[in-house]
Amino acid sequence: MSISPAKTVYMDHAATTAVAPAVLDTMLPYFSEAFGNPSSIYALAQLARRSIDEARQRCAKVLGARPSEIVFTSGGTESDNAAIMGSALALRTSGNHIVTTAIEHHAILHAAEFLESWGFNVTYVKPEHNGIVSVDAIVAALTPSTTVVSVMLANNEVGVIEPVSEIVKAVKVRAAEENRTIVVHTDAVQGAGYLNLNVDKLGVDMLSLSAHKFGGPKGAGLLYIRRNTPFKPTQVGGAQERDRRAGTENTPAIVGMGFALEAAEDTRSGSVAKCMVLRDRLIAGISERVENARLNGDLNHRLPNNVNFTFHSVEAESLLMGLDLAGIAASSGSACTAASLEPSHVLLAMGHSDADARSTLRLTVGPENTEDEVDYVVTTIAELIPRLRKLAGRL
Amino acid sequence: MSISPAKTVYMDHAATTAVAPAVLDTMLPYFSEAFGNPSSIYALAQLARRSIDEARQRCAKVLGARPSEIVFTSGGTESDNAAIMGSALALRTSGNHIVTTAIEHHAILHAAEFLESWGFNVTYVKPEHNGIVSVDAIVAALTPSTTVVSVMLANNEVGVIEPVSEIVKAVKVRAAEENRTIVVHTDAVQGAGYLNLNVDKLGVDMLSLSAHKFGGPKGAGLLYIRRNTPFKPTQVGGAQERDRRAGTENTPAIVGMGFALEAAEDTRSGSVAKCMVLRDRLIAGISERVENARLNGDLNHRLPNNVNFTFHSVEAESLLMGLDLAGIAASSGSACTAASLEPSHVLLAMGHSDADARSTLRLTVGPENTEDEVDYVVTTIAELIPRLRKLAGRL
Repeated sequence: MSISPAKTVYMDHAATTAVAPAVLDTMLPYFSEAFGNPSSIYALAQLARRSIDEARQRCAKVLGARPSEIVFTSGGTESDNAAIMGSALALRTSGNHIVTTAIEHHAILHAAEFLESWGFNVTYVKPEHNGIVSVDAIVAALTPSTTVVSVMLANNEVGVIEPVSEIVKAVKVRAAEENRTIVVHTDAVQGAGYLNLNVDKLGVDMLSLSAHKFGGPKGAGLLYIRRNTPFKPTQVGGAQERDRRAGTENTPAIVGMGFALEAAEDTRSGSVAKCMVLRDRLIAGISERVENARLNGDLNHRLPNNVNFTFHSVEAESLLMGLDLAGIAASSGSACTAASLEPSHVLLAMGHSDADARSTLRLTVGPENTEDEVDYVVTTIAELIPRLRKLAGRL
Repeated sequence: MSISPAKTVYMDHAATTAVAPAVLDTMLPYFSEAFGNPSSIYALAQLARRSIDEARQRCAKVLGARPSEIVFTSGGTESDNAAIMGSALALRTSGNHIVTTAIEHHAILHAAEFLESWGFNVTYVKPEHNGIVSVDAIVAALTPSTTVVSVMLANNEVGVIEPVSEIVKAVKVRAAEENRTIVVHTDAVQGAGYLNLNVDKLGVDMLSLSAHKFGGPKGAGLLYIRRNTPFKPTQVGGAQERDRRAGTENTPAIVGMGFALEAAEDTRSGSVAKCMVLRDRLIAGISERVENARLNGDLNHRLPNNVNFTFHSVEAESLLMGLDLAGIAASSGSACTAASLEPSHVLLAMGHSDADARSTLRLTVGPENTEDEVDYVVTTIAELIPRLRKLAGRL
């Protein structure tokens, strides 16, 4: 066993990733040297401006988009909020109905609730038991006043990949038939580095990314907005980002995100292959060595790095504590709700019980994980689960 | 003259500042080492959580606030937007009127316009000719449906310090008489490092700061929200920041901001003294050596680092180009609107003409500037202005 107690076995890549050292190197000149405000006109500032333009080109290239269609934000949450609020507000004279799914990240769900408080109506489409949202269910939810549809590219808890391009096609057919605009957005935060993010293949009008999920820095994200998509900015002030997102540009973070996204795309096929091996080894190991372990979410339409198991009669919190003591970083679901005691809304929407939703472990690997680490994690889980069940039985 | 052409004489500190090397050092461990998502429960994440708690304590101490009253944001614009939108929305059942000033940053003005599009009414109080907003003018603007008042601590263009504590007192008297809540916010973005930010002395319910204005990183800001102040979050999703600002915490930026704010406060009296000498030397030198140069904004109630001159018949853009060629970084006004061709809304509100508002130069010094640099800037301006006027006369 090559794991020393001081070293963490990090299997929570869906929560966040380390900034890659090469990415950090690209950021460093912009903190204290080329620090000028990119909106200023002098040479020092224009250095920053050019580096932002380059980052925009890098991001656009990965998405198959125009640089002018990339809006830099402070992260995935801001991008998601801006996407559905910005498009719903821009289209509010033509309709007040939004379609999304019950398994979106809270950055979408709570933004939708915010809009409900302003008189919008929202339909939260439920997925099948396997976590897949059917095209038919989305189409069935459309009404003559629907203006915005938002369906995530891949779920952050169970890793299920949604049929976004098919959904877009069906929604656009309906919009064309009725000669009106329905904007389609996808939260692709979990997809970067693993899925094809080409916006024309996906067909979406808007797409959200968060840099810290793919080796970039925290505090940086982007929102792709297809040319001519109705959009009312929600963060307002200066004229930055072509009047679509106010606030001094975060030069080092934007530069880092550009390099990180490019690197994630360049190494994507290798990462996918490597992670799938690790993922499948985790799934096989846990299934084999732990009784009453149920994999959640479809196996075939799944992120290459996601494992999500329910262990009947096990409190996730106790399991996570045990794993932490063994130097393993994992989670019960979304990190954004880790502190809350609510059961996962994703598992509930998939039809699981409250108790099951509280007994769930998410492991998300990255390309730097090893088979040794996987085996260590499987062994640790296989030892912990029976002990926790015995303990629970005694209470 | 000790200025080499390769070195920039940086006199645009109101636009942004370099991250202090000592501050960058405090940030570095949180990019690739202690990179865990602060919401997660394992040891790696708790390292980040603790560092954020410490940063919150540092910031709270400078403001004389409780740590729980500090909400970390992505910057000054987000803080300003959240402050007035969040309080106006929270109080919308008790009133729909907002009072602010005509010389606020666009992060306030455009947020106010956003609220107008939702049925709120906004009064934009004009300052006196010297840039000072009178307490009486604010009080006169209050109506029985006023719920929010926002007045900046110091103006970003002309450096005028507003009588915020007196305004708060007068507004709170009115609120008490009528037994209702009026939230008072101040945009203190330009004040950090130069003015006392104690929230009890100021009396405000909310206060915005932006880290990159005081030697901290871009992409980080804070919003102070006094306990029990009505507030509806506008960036929604995860439960971060006690449900007041969703989104994965930007650990390195938050850590950097905490250290930078503490350092700015610790060195404040020295910075004020040093900058006042430089500022007054700039003002005296320019007044003496340039004909038809008018200082804008009150001299006695003024940030120690701000100089703002109108040079009759000079296009600011040409002047800035000339200064840039001489290695001097300066601006015509707010960096956030540098790219736009609009004349300064601040100078217009102070009663200056369109032409004068287009002929204005802002120089904002920092404690690392020198008297040699000041003399070089004065000499350069004294040479440039007559040439530019001659050129303009010929056109």
